[in-house]
Amino acid sequence: MEAGVPGKRQPSLGKAACILTGASRGFGRSLALLLAPRLEAGSVLVLVARSQGALAELETDLRRGFSGLEVNSVPADLSTEEGMQLVLGAVRELPGAADLERLIIINNAGSLGEISKSFVDFTSPAEVNSYFAFNVTSALCLTSSILKAFPERPGLCKTVVNISSLCAVKPFKSWTLYCTGKAARDMMFQILALEKPDVRVVNYAPGPLDTEMQQLARTKSGDPEVRQQFLDMKQSGGLLDCSISAQKLVNLLLEDTFDSGAHIDFYDI
Amino acid sequence: MEAGVPGKRQPSLGKAACILTGASRGFGRSLALLLAPRLEAGSVLVLVARSQGALAELETDLRRGFSGLEVNSVPADLSTEEGMQLVLGAVRELPGAADLERLIIINNAGSLGEISKSFVDFTSPAEVNSYFAFNVTSALCLTSSILKAFPERPGLCKTVVNISSLCAVKPFKSWTLYCTGKAARDMMFQILALEKPDVRVVNYAPGPLDTEMQQLARTKSGDPEVRQQFLDMKQSGGLLDCSISAQKLVNLLLEDTFDSGAHIDFYDI
Repeated sequence: MEAGVPGKRQPSLGKAACILTGASRGFGRSLALLLAPRLEAGSVLVLVARSQGALAELETDLRRGFSGLEVNSVPADLSTEEGMQLVLGAVRELPGAADLERLIIINNAGSLGEISKSFVDFTSPAEVNSYFAFNVTSALCLTSSILKAFPERPGLCKTVVNISSLCAVKPFKSWTLYCTGKAARDMMFQILALEKPDVRVVNYAPGPLDTEMQQLARTKSGDPEVRQQFLDMKQSGGLLDCSISAQKLVNLLLEDTFDSGAHIDFYDI
Repeated sequence: MEAGVPGKRQPSLGKAACILTGASRGFGRSLALLLAPRLEAGSVLVLVARSQGALAELETDLRRGFSGLEVNSVPADLSTEEGMQLVLGAVRELPGAADLERLIIINNAGSLGEISKSFVDFTSPAEVNSYFAFNVTSALCLTSSILKAFPERPGLCKTVVNISSLCAVKPFKSWTLYCTGKAARDMMFQILALEKPDVRVVNYAPGPLDTEMQQLARTKSGDPEVRQQFLDMKQSGGLLDCSISAQKLVNLLLEDTFDSGAHIDFYDI
């Protein structure tokens, strides 16, 4: 990494518009802080999350550290039509700079779903529909709407990131909704990659992060074996710091050599 | 195959309760007709589909051919809570025969979704949510509810079939919703297989069937290349008769040696 070498300019993502969901904490927050120094003056970072307070705090930190960066916070619940419209409104209001070099959409928002239940306990369509609305539908419709808001033109590179998981490719007991949603998202973004060769798409599995989600995993997973595995992982120091994994994703974006549509795991690179 | 050898008893699925969705036409209808002779006297076949007329016709055919079989038709739209309740009501009313040897749940109902659109055209959450409600949520909640309605007991073997597709494992341009839904279902049923070793689960991809769905594929797929591939497949005789593929699935169920949770394609066996 060249970061921090005195006198040497850091590699950059250019003048960009970047939309990041689930930005207020955990991996999303780390990513925002690591992306900011790679965005050139005049770039805009749109931060989306449900928690207004945590978003405002992050916005303050970013404004203080990166004066050339415009930061827009959008407190919104992406599981609702209203929340989607709030984000799309913010995207439509972005300055349509003719010299914009890059559009980056990062679908990081997601929820674990009810992990104390087994497959056979999911008998309520409303509960399941609500999970998919937030975790699958909103990622599809938001990405589509944003891509449409930025017509193709020479010099504008578009990148779409899906924050995926090992759970997208491997089933885990007690994690019915999470695995199903992540598998759905991986497939959906593979199709985008096929259909739009001009859009760079990556399904990035960030590895086992030391976040609140992992805390839930080791305490609430219905299956005792799964719970123990996550507990062991925590106790043996096997969990990753969000910023370590977020940095790998930033490097992926900077290098920009991945196969579009690929599922790339933290441990693969 | 032993079918039709005079004087020789056909292998049987025993005395079974079998619930089949999407039964009124295409693959579902063929499957119903091929399953019926493998169900012993006293078995019940619950047929679910939206089309009341086509269901009634199939029911008549089955009653005529297999006098020992109880056939219950349930006209229901599984994308709605009301439709789900209709099916669950019919399942609860099934005779709880103590000598029932097998419960078979076949999740065959499904829709293609809008294939004239690309990923970037899916900007309406309502459209996408409605697709997943029918194609993913209903399969999960129906399967769970039925499994719960039949408590485990020695001598009762439970089998769950997910009618999958090549699209569950391979992305196709123009088929965003279909591929995403099928990938989601495969994952979801893999989890059931992991969680319930006593339930036999198979994700069966029936191959390219010569159905109405294929006609839509070769005429309505938004991507011209995809359209042409499906057209070529039709013209070169590459499409399969539903009954050929349904027979392979019946054989799989009779042999019952598959790895639970596996994705098994028509061409693999």
